[in-house]
Amino acid sequence: MPNTFGHLYRITTFGESHGGGVGVVIDGCPPGYPLDLEAVQAWLNRRRPGQSHLSSPRQEKDRVECLSGLEGGVTLGTPLTLMVRNEDQKPGDYQDMQTVFRPSHADYTTYAKYGVRPSSGGGRASARETIGRVAAAAVAEQILLANIPSLRCVGYVDSVKGKQATITDPETLTREEVDAHPLRCPDQTTRAELEGIITSAQKAGDTVGGTIACVLTGVPVGLGDPVFDKLEADLAKAMLSLPASKGFEIGLGFAATTLFGSEHNDAFTTKDGVIRTVTNRSGGTQGGISNGEAIYFRVAFKPVSTIFKEQDTVDAAGKQQKLTPKSGRHDPCVLPRAVPMVEAMAILVIMDHWIRQKALSAARLPR
Amino acid sequence: MPNTFGHLYRITTFGESHGGGVGVVIDGCPPGYPLDLEAVQAWLNRRRPGQSHLSSPRQEKDRVECLSGLEGGVTLGTPLTLMVRNEDQKPGDYQDMQTVFRPSHADYTTYAKYGVRPSSGGGRASARETIGRVAAAAVAEQILLANIPSLRCVGYVDSVKGKQATITDPETLTREEVDAHPLRCPDQTTRAELEGIITSAQKAGDTVGGTIACVLTGVPVGLGDPVFDKLEADLAKAMLSLPASKGFEIGLGFAATTLFGSEHNDAFTTKDGVIRTVTNRSGGTQGGISNGEAIYFRVAFKPVSTIFKEQDTVDAAGKQQKLTPKSGRHDPCVLPRAVPMVEAMAILVIMDHWIRQKALSAARLPR
Amino acid sequence: MPNTFGHLYRITTFGESHGGGVGVVIDGCPPGYPLDLEAVQAWLNRRRPGQSHLSSPRQEKDRVECLSGLEGGVTLGTPLTLMVRNEDQKPGDYQDMQTVFRPSHADYTTYAKYGVRPSSGGGRASARETIGRVAAAAVAEQILLANIPSLRCVGYVDSVKGKQATITDPETLTREEVDAHPLRCPDQTTRAELEGIITSAQKAGDTVGGTIACVLTGVPVGLGDPVFDKLEADLAKAMLSLPASKGFEIGLGFAATTLFGSEHNDAFTTKDGVIRTVTNRSGGTQGGISNGEAIYFRVAFKPVSTIFKEQDTVDAAGKQQKLTPKSGRHDPCVLPRAVPMVEAMAILVIMDHWIRQKALSAARLPR
Amino acid sequence: MPNTFGHLYRITTFGESHGGGVGVVIDGCPPGYPLDLEAVQAWLNRRRPGQSHLSSPRQEKDRVECLSGLEGGVTLGTPLTLMVRNEDQKPGDYQDMQTVFRPSHADYTTYAKYGVRPSSGGGRASARETIGRVAAAAVAEQILLANIPSLRCVGYVDSVKGKQATITDPETLTREEVDAHPLRCPDQTTRAELEGIITSAQKAGDTVGGTIACVLTGVPVGLGDPVFDKLEADLAKAMLSLPASKGFEIGLGFAATTLFGSEHNDAFTTKDGVIRTVTNRSGGTQGGISNGEAIYFRVAFKPVSTIFKEQDTVDAAGKQQKLTPKSGRHDPCVLPRAVPMVEAMAILVIMDHWIRQKALSAARLPR
Repeated sequence: MPNTFGHLYRITTFGESHGGGVGVVIDGCPPGYPLDLEAVQAWLNRRRPGQSHLSSPRQEKDRVECLSGLEGGVTLGTPLTLMVRNEDQKPGDYQDMQTVFRPSHADYTTYAKYGVRPSSGGGRASARETIGRVAAAAVAEQILLANIPSLRCVGYVDSVKGKQATITDPETLTREEVDAHPLRCPDQTTRAELEGIITSAQKAGDTVGGTIACVLTGVPVGLGDPVFDKLEADLAKAMLSLPASKGFEIGLGFAATTLFGSEHNDAFTTKDGVIRTVTNRSGGTQGGISNGEAIYFRVAFKPVSTIFKEQDTVDAAGKQQKLTPKSGRHDPCVLPRAVPMVEAMAILVIMDHWIRQKALSAARLPR
Repeated sequence: MPNTFGHLYRITTFGESHGGGVGVVIDGCPPGYPLDLEAVQAWLNRRRPGQSHLSSPRQEKDRVECLSGLEGGVTLGTPLTLMVRNEDQKPGDYQDMQTVFRPSHADYTTYAKYGVRPSSGGGRASARETIGRVAAAAVAEQILLANIPSLRCVGYVDSVKGKQATITDPETLTREEVDAHPLRCPDQTTRAELEGIITSAQKAGDTVGGTIACVLTGVPVGLGDPVFDKLEADLAKAMLSLPASKGFEIGLGFAATTLFGSEHNDAFTTKDGVIRTVTNRSGGTQGGISNGEAIYFRVAFKPVSTIFKEQDTVDAAGKQQKLTPKSGRHDPCVLPRAVPMVEAMAILVIMDHWIRQKALSAARLPR
Repeated sequence: MPNTFGHLYRITTFGESHGGGVGVVIDGCPPGYPLDLEAVQAWLNRRRPGQSHLSSPRQEKDRVECLSGLEGGVTLGTPLTLMVRNEDQKPGDYQDMQTVFRPSHADYTTYAKYGVRPSSGGGRASARETIGRVAAAAVAEQILLANIPSLRCVGYVDSVKGKQATITDPETLTREEVDAHPLRCPDQTTRAELEGIITSAQKAGDTVGGTIACVLTGVPVGLGDPVFDKLEADLAKAMLSLPASKGFEIGLGFAATTLFGSEHNDAFTTKDGVIRTVTNRSGGTQGGISNGEAIYFRVAFKPVSTIFKEQDTVDAAGKQQKLTPKSGRHDPCVLPRAVPMVEAMAILVIMDHWIRQKALSAARLPR
Repeated sequence: MPNTFGHLYRITTFGESHGGGVGVVIDGCPPGYPLDLEAVQAWLNRRRPGQSHLSSPRQEKDRVECLSGLEGGVTLGTPLTLMVRNEDQKPGDYQDMQTVFRPSHADYTTYAKYGVRPSSGGGRASARETIGRVAAAAVAEQILLANIPSLRCVGYVDSVKGKQATITDPETLTREEVDAHPLRCPDQTTRAELEGIITSAQKAGDTVGGTIACVLTGVPVGLGDPVFDKLEADLAKAMLSLPASKGFEIGLGFAATTLFGSEHNDAFTTKDGVIRTVTNRSGGTQGGISNGEAIYFRVAFKPVSTIFKEQDTVDAAGKQQKLTPKSGRHDPCVLPRAVPMVEAMAILVIMDHWIRQKALSAARLPR
């Protein structure tokens, strides 16, 4: 189960960052949908390194290949397997890392857990592992949109190293607007400053983190379960399962703790015959179940662990060592590439709960 | 699956807040452990309403009964079922709520999801549902302590309505110290002020929220999986599955986004022959796997939705209505009672991953 | 997972034969169905001991109690918990069995597996554990019938100790016809002989086995999955999970191996605009998926292990011992009481796959 | 879940018979094992068509490729992905079959279930799908043997079209002895006759079925769970999930129903300090848990559905049609190739329960 996510749209990802390839098997992909593999490729391109000066110069083509589940471009309802071959590997980059544990990386914990050391250090703990997730989400989004044409899921860079962007109307943002700039921050006012923070850090051999916000509109009422599988609980797990993420909040999140109940509650009203809330401080769910309002949440990403400064560490024998990476192809800031990862995990959560709710509704008492 | 949590220590909770009872079936409880049911009861007492003026006056004895899985006080390895009968029900309290949807409560979403309306409004979306979780965690903790005597899991109220407590050395706190005061905030300096915030809100018919911090020490290295089931991802899901929670952060969390990588990384060192980190900004995990340092995290709880002020809402027909609860037995602040719930969910995550890691280690290549 | 069956209609049974009680939690019970608890009780009565001279004189009332998931007699969509308290226990009966392992019983393997010995010897390996299954099936059948009024599932005793009954038209049999005689064998010609075999064995302190056949009509086309979760695979698991069962065959089963392909194949035809097969040697499934024809299968039950003759055995120390049960309340033949168990497991398989297919259909491309 | 088998050694197979390839992702492969991919290939060669005149002349190289989970030939504990590319496809062979439903094949039920028609007719319902199972079992067997060197799992053809082979001492048979003849029947006396039955049927354009027996020795005591996941229940599901299988029996199976309890019970004794049974009519399990004796079972396989005679059928519109396959590359008898499939599924069941029992034992009360 550790490499599986979802129940009825169940994905299992496979592959190491520096092995033969990475991919995903989707079990539970509904049958009969024409699938646009180029749209899947476009999603993968958004998460690929080498898109701009803000991300790793590592150039990978990341061409997606469909191994099963599709015939004549239509989903069969059988396991849909998508794979990307690993290319452009320079294992030499990692040689120093084989002998010592990189601080705040997964090298040590991976070794402690499994008793074996992948040459890449962290094995599956790699941004490259997310290729399978993004590919599976790109498929899910096509299926969701065929059923819920108004659904939108848009993420964006919300802050960099504590500097907050200002997005006035996040519910109307489009991915095109976000992607128009390599930083993936749609705030024209602060963007240059945020970008400067990243490039300065990069020049200093350092890295920075920040927050990504994500908004989903058009999500049907009734998704999510009232106990463990609350929609916000599954979103929280989804986001904290992304590399480098350290926090999650939905609705007003931590800021909600500063309000009185009378200030935080969202009064109900009726608009166009539909039950709605006057405000949306809850962020689109109540009791773990979507209420039809916009779902919005924020995710905290720490600064990338791989820096280009000398660091104290130990080797597998526990002997004190210095680590000074000489070269490398890592991002000074994970945020721009993490935007499609956040969207992907959100889509996977919605897709799974959408099918679950379809199942529940379909099994209700017939009228 | 919606009422199940965990894989190898798998709990399924059942019961509505206002039905015959609530409880839990634990599938995967290891055999051969003498079980102290009074210790389970003591955990339940910590989460029970009516403990002080800071919580609901609802008086429930919450006596735990063991239906299966135990013989001569020893676990059989078969499903362990623990149940608490519902008592002290006053369904009349909820009569108004049957006809209108309470703002920011689960009444509307529950109805929209299931098409039926439990008399309590939110059905399973009730703090009472957590009895099963707390009971299962009380069992798990006994088993964990038999194997890892140094393990400690201590939660406490960290802030109330934005007012932050100051806890100087959270890793040495004990539950006894926390429980010594009804607020469950061990900061003697700010405690009176925090308590005043709650009692003032209560007098005004209002409610407040805040944050709970939790620290785990003695967790073995190697728990957690590198992809979806990262330890922090499962903790995030666990916490966001608690009623009224809106946010989660581990380690420095959102504050980590303000640092450079060179400031955030935890250098490795060796203490007493064990690989340790010099600092612990990560909060005890790297790449989703525990590294042997203290695990600490914070959870945001919104102000309780049930207030004693008139609110705008609608009924099931969508007609605008006023809601003015006349009586009721709800908490002005969920925090004191949420402390054992947070600890319980943390213990459940650790227990499941502990067995999972036991399984992985046991299946490794024999020497 | 070991005490859970099904995916979307997921049951978890609990309880030892000689503890506080036995029961089941149903996770995935669809909402909105009026539930007839008396019909559930009637199913339980059919499986209860003490129904006739052909079964154990052990008298248990087996009154079912609903702990959760129901309000005003209507399913809430939340976990439905059904429990039967244990009564009429005479633990003294089992005293000899505590010290030695009963041949062909689960005493030894239970002890070897768990390292603890329940006083009943076999712990969960008890016909009494099936109460939870039968109760869950009784609920499932009500829901299935509300959706598929023509569905029928009828089991009957097909042979006793090798003596075969002759049932001319099993597809039109009713449960009432089967239950009209305590043996649950609807063949008037051989019934007396079969009954005589059992009573003779009983007088001799011995036991006998036999086969149960089961026929399901009205099952919709499309249930079952083409790979691991073939309908026949899940039925096989379901049946082999019943105490004392040793074999399963569907359609012509082992007899199918004696035919040529040209003799065994079921030609297709069209009746009343519906695609049907001319013959039904397959037993209602092809490639693991139901084809709309009657599903029929047979299950082999060994003779009950508890006999009233002296047997050679060992104790936990491995020392050779004699076992001579002095008293006891066991069945000379499990078959009559196993009929509702077989039906129950078949219903549980159909229910789970019915919801699964509902989910698959509901998630298909919208037109 | 429909394409997943096992819990802790969890395999997910993918691929259609006539798409890009077929394969398997193993989640839960223990780390640190040197893996012999040639031994995996050798297993696949045993199940490959074109091995002799007794099976389909379809020549596929079936070269296994490892995509992930392995580095330096050692398992990493991460998902192990094994794939075989499809080659030698002649889709033209299936053209007739696209328009009409082949009797007793999965064409119709696949279409009814999914609403789409794979060009191969049955999609995943193909013997080729078992490649992933066999590959996963070949890996599992290597790991099991590193821990339990005495473990043996040997299947063989036991009967063809009702003609029974006589195997005097199945517990000492080796795979080499079985594989020495293309029929995989080690009975020298009847083998020629059995082979004649197959070749006669083949000449007549017809097909035959039969039974496969399988014996496992060296299985540790304590594998299997007492309720739903009885070892025999999981074996039954495993076997009935194989294409063309119609029945399963363990121990004496259906023949056990002809004995008295006093004749069927296996008395306990002690040999070399180990608790054993004097006889082994149970077939190696009691109450669903292995008792250390040889596990033996039989599986019934129907005659292959694809025959070379004219058959009555219908098309998707329900119109009556004649089906006369002109060419084709199918087996006259599935039995020889099904032997490794049966062994593979048995190994997968044992492997999963072995890890499960490792987990249970490792989590027991420490001494």
